[in-house]
Amino acid sequence: MMTTRDTTPTITLITDFGLNDEYVGVMKGVIYRFCSTVNIVDLCHAVPPQDTLQAALMLEASYRYFDRRTIHVVVIDPGVGTERHILLIKAENQIFIGPDNGVLTPALQSQHLESCHRLTIPKNISATFHGRDIMAPASARLACGEAPNEIGIEVAIEDCMLLTLPQATSKADQVIGEVITIDHFGNLLTSITAKQVQELGKDVQVSIETTTIPAVSSAYANVSVDAPLALINSRGRLEIAINQGNAAKTLDAAVGEKVILEKKSSS
Amino acid sequence: MMTTRDTTPTITLITDFGLNDEYVGVMKGVIYRFCSTVNIVDLCHAVPPQDTLQAALMLEASYRYFDRRTIHVVVIDPGVGTERHILLIKAENQIFIGPDNGVLTPALQSQHLESCHRLTIPKNISATFHGRDIMAPASARLACGEAPNEIGIEVAIEDCMLLTLPQATSKADQVIGEVITIDHFGNLLTSITAKQVQELGKDVQVSIETTTIPAVSSAYANVSVDAPLALINSRGRLEIAINQGNAAKTLDAAVGEKVILEKKSSS
Amino acid sequence: MMTTRDTTPTITLITDFGLNDEYVGVMKGVIYRFCSTVNIVDLCHAVPPQDTLQAALMLEASYRYFDRRTIHVVVIDPGVGTERHILLIKAENQIFIGPDNGVLTPALQSQHLESCHRLTIPKNISATFHGRDIMAPASARLACGEAPNEIGIEVAIEDCMLLTLPQATSKADQVIGEVITIDHFGNLLTSITAKQVQELGKDVQVSIETTTIPAVSSAYANVSVDAPLALINSRGRLEIAINQGNAAKTLDAAVGEKVILEKKSSS
Repeated sequence: MMTTRDTTPTITLITDFGLNDEYVGVMKGVIYRFCSTVNIVDLCHAVPPQDTLQAALMLEASYRYFDRRTIHVVVIDPGVGTERHILLIKAENQIFIGPDNGVLTPALQSQHLESCHRLTIPKNISATFHGRDIMAPASARLACGEAPNEIGIEVAIEDCMLLTLPQATSKADQVIGEVITIDHFGNLLTSITAKQVQELGKDVQVSIETTTIPAVSSAYANVSVDAPLALINSRGRLEIAINQGNAAKTLDAAVGEKVILEKKSSS
Repeated sequence: MMTTRDTTPTITLITDFGLNDEYVGVMKGVIYRFCSTVNIVDLCHAVPPQDTLQAALMLEASYRYFDRRTIHVVVIDPGVGTERHILLIKAENQIFIGPDNGVLTPALQSQHLESCHRLTIPKNISATFHGRDIMAPASARLACGEAPNEIGIEVAIEDCMLLTLPQATSKADQVIGEVITIDHFGNLLTSITAKQVQELGKDVQVSIETTTIPAVSSAYANVSVDAPLALINSRGRLEIAINQGNAAKTLDAAVGEKVILEKKSSS
Repeated sequence: MMTTRDTTPTITLITDFGLNDEYVGVMKGVIYRFCSTVNIVDLCHAVPPQDTLQAALMLEASYRYFDRRTIHVVVIDPGVGTERHILLIKAENQIFIGPDNGVLTPALQSQHLESCHRLTIPKNISATFHGRDIMAPASARLACGEAPNEIGIEVAIEDCMLLTLPQATSKADQVIGEVITIDHFGNLLTSITAKQVQELGKDVQVSIETTTIPAVSSAYANVSVDAPLALINSRGRLEIAINQGNAAKTLDAAVGEKVILEKKSSS
């Protein structure tokens, strides 16, 4: 499957490295050394240090927008240098590489999961930077046409670690979820899915702490500037926002805050 | 014009997305899915949220350094999800894509303006992320050879929204301008153009608040370390700086601060 | 040497420009205008303004991970617009471009130094942005096959400025070094090399201020969460860290802080 080179393949990176050090650039240097004709996309380097759950949520929100054959590399790796394995998962016609600590949960739980390999560990590598020494070369070799079997050994899916991703609870007249991520604009991304919103019908309201929002809007600009609103966001989740404002600051909300979607007649 | 592929085309991005979320990376994923052989350049993702004027100024400062056929995409879009149009402007042998809210003013006011199209809106798109769902695919399709008529409908230039870009006022013996941007170094970029400086001659001084700078220098290092200076900067504008220091902090200046350039004899 | 185009060449960038302005993007625009088939890697744009030493340390930590023929461009340039020269150094089968102020010290001191050129300065350039007007075009022309002699004049190595890079002092039973960089995780990167650690043997301890670490570990996770540790990091240097924590904050340490590695028996 990886041998046809009609298009340039893409490798994406999700790390907690930040952009103040050479770490991200050095990973790209290694990738290009192994495969110089590849597109590299920075998905995010601002994952909070060692926060495997946020990395998994970001991967889940992103991978479907990339072409088939894309290789996603996730380097959130508090166990670097220990015996934890590094996984290569084929799923959704893409490839996912990362430590066996749950960051690849969206791939492991995907509808179209093909196989899981553990990467063979090269000798003489650092104890602190397997992104550079193992994952970057592996991703580049796959991008340039090698098969998973050439760089790893297949293992059972059941042997791979999963994280519990936040899921909102649907009841008859309400859905109880939580804030799972706060974005750059201060928008509050919740665990409530578009499907859960649709199932509850149109006459609903959304509550977070002492704020109640009387409808689910279709655009930020549907309410006046500085007013709170709820809408289905670009991740396909319910989001609480302030039109042209910062909901996290205005509503003083944090990740984990409870969010209730309910039928108006039931309130 | 877009069919010859002797060189790899470039797409640039200006957004207010920041780099903490997956938004920029996902736009690149969509671009590469439609056109895998394109160079993508991040011009800036730190435009203050919804600040269409700063985005327009950044576009004006940047586009001329890119090759012909470059496609600039500007996603500062407070009206996302509403009826505002998305424009595709051919000007200066380049292409500019962005919402019809003034962010493309430098293209609309350019000396070499060719045409303006409104993009056809696909069905089943998000209400919050037209950068991903409309502008990224459009830019990629143009990069890979499609013509504006294939993805939009031509409209009259007069129907497109313009912003008023700050312009300094030239009088006989002085030019009155303002600080329009503060850069990473704390340099104060003003609205006074190199041409306005040249017209006033060499024997001039620059004032901002209580500070008077007795000349226009040709390099930062022409004054001693920590001394204030004025020079023509890389944008071709008068800039107030501190040699190896931070003018915004030292002079306590903000965007909008009045700056006066005047002949010394007249003071 | 630069004429064979079997692989796409890479240009890396180290600057103090930050990412809030158009400066980095504009340099890339100029590079792609001169050579559209090149990979550009951001090594770092967060070097403290005018900090030539940190730029040199970052270059030293990075270049060896890139392919031969890579062109490294370092734009830390407090003397921009003055008579200082811009250098092009061939070393380690790579090329290094930057102002003659010491930022290229790792190339000038490399084991495999081939030649040094001063770049010819084009006419009608800005006085403030030689990264855009000189270094970007030079790097692109080299990437697309031109030879150093076409864009500069060879000079003697002895005429190039060197910085003194921090070096730890080895004694019989101890090595005295210092913190040279604090990374995104708050890890304290020291001047003590892996070789100096190995020479002292296994029964050693590491001290910084009032904290003594009783061993050199092989991985962060070898100590409990929140405990301090020392290990050989990905730069091949002794590093002081907190497992899943921030050593700079916890130990209240800054760049320049003294670090002592010593045999336990000698304490």
